[in-house]
Amino acid sequence: MTATGTPVRILLVEDNEDHAEVVRRGLKCHGMSNDIRHVLDGSVALDYLLRRGEYEDPQKSPRPHVILLDLRLPKVDGLEVLKEIKEHAELRRIPVVVLTSSQAESDVAVAYDHHVNSYLVKPLHFKQFTELLRDLASYWLEWNVNPFVQDTSD
Amino acid sequence: MTATGTPVRILLVEDNEDHAEVVRRGLKCHGMSNDIRHVLDGSVALDYLLRRGEYEDPQKSPRPHVILLDLRLPKVDGLEVLKEIKEHAELRRIPVVVLTSSQAESDVAVAYDHHVNSYLVKPLHFKQFTELLRDLASYWLEWNVNPFVQDTSD
Repeated sequence: MTATGTPVRILLVEDNEDHAEVVRRGLKCHGMSNDIRHVLDGSVALDYLLRRGEYEDPQKSPRPHVILLDLRLPKVDGLEVLKEIKEHAELRRIPVVVLTSSQAESDVAVAYDHHVNSYLVKPLHFKQFTELLRDLASYWLEWNVNPFVQDTSD
Repeated sequence: MTATGTPVRILLVEDNEDHAEVVRRGLKCHGMSNDIRHVLDGSVALDYLLRRGEYEDPQKSPRPHVILLDLRLPKVDGLEVLKEIKEHAELRRIPVVVLTSSQAESDVAVAYDHHVNSYLVKPLHFKQFTELLRDLASYWLEWNVNPFVQDTSD
């Protein structure tokens, strides 16, 4: 829950449906009342955040409190999505957590250069993946103080 | 431990000795082999990070992997320390976690505008504070992939 008592809204940007399902279940099974919006590529992620096309209505497409971002995405790469978010005056404060299979030092470096808030590598084993999601949820949804997100629905 | 097997180095910037002791104990009791350097004000924090004066030798004053930063600090305020870190080419990638008593919306906003990685409020009760430190430690010292920190000692 946020300080104002609304559920924490999470934008999950993930092209792998299996991974998205693991994340959804992982976050839900901790009993937290969250609102998870899932998009499948970088282009739709930016449409959602920048309120383009079908995401024009702020009531239906409220700004998320936290963004979970895969890196290898169709259409627009995750690092480009991150860069656009962090350069945008209304979006830059939203915490972005990269959740990727890439351990490449260059990806880590570029993500931090683009002001990623945190960089996580998906564990190969399911048990570890769910442990990571448990800790991710308690950290970002319970402890971290998310900035006020300018939004008509808050 | 970092990917190269060295202990995670933490720079703790905290003027309250009691809080610093709680943090030190909280991080150590999770059995992690960490190297915690503690400084008491914002000016010394910048001297350490920028290798000025007694912190000139990189061997004795290696760059930290994570910085825990209080906000209300003597000499140089925590938000100014954060700003300098995130504007400095060699320091900006280091994750900075604010750990403060301030819940002021303006502090949260300015911290995110200066690219803080995460913002945590110290719980009033000791039990909750140690729970926060447990989760902080497992998140930033185990799961998060810290960027390569350019350093002679790595």
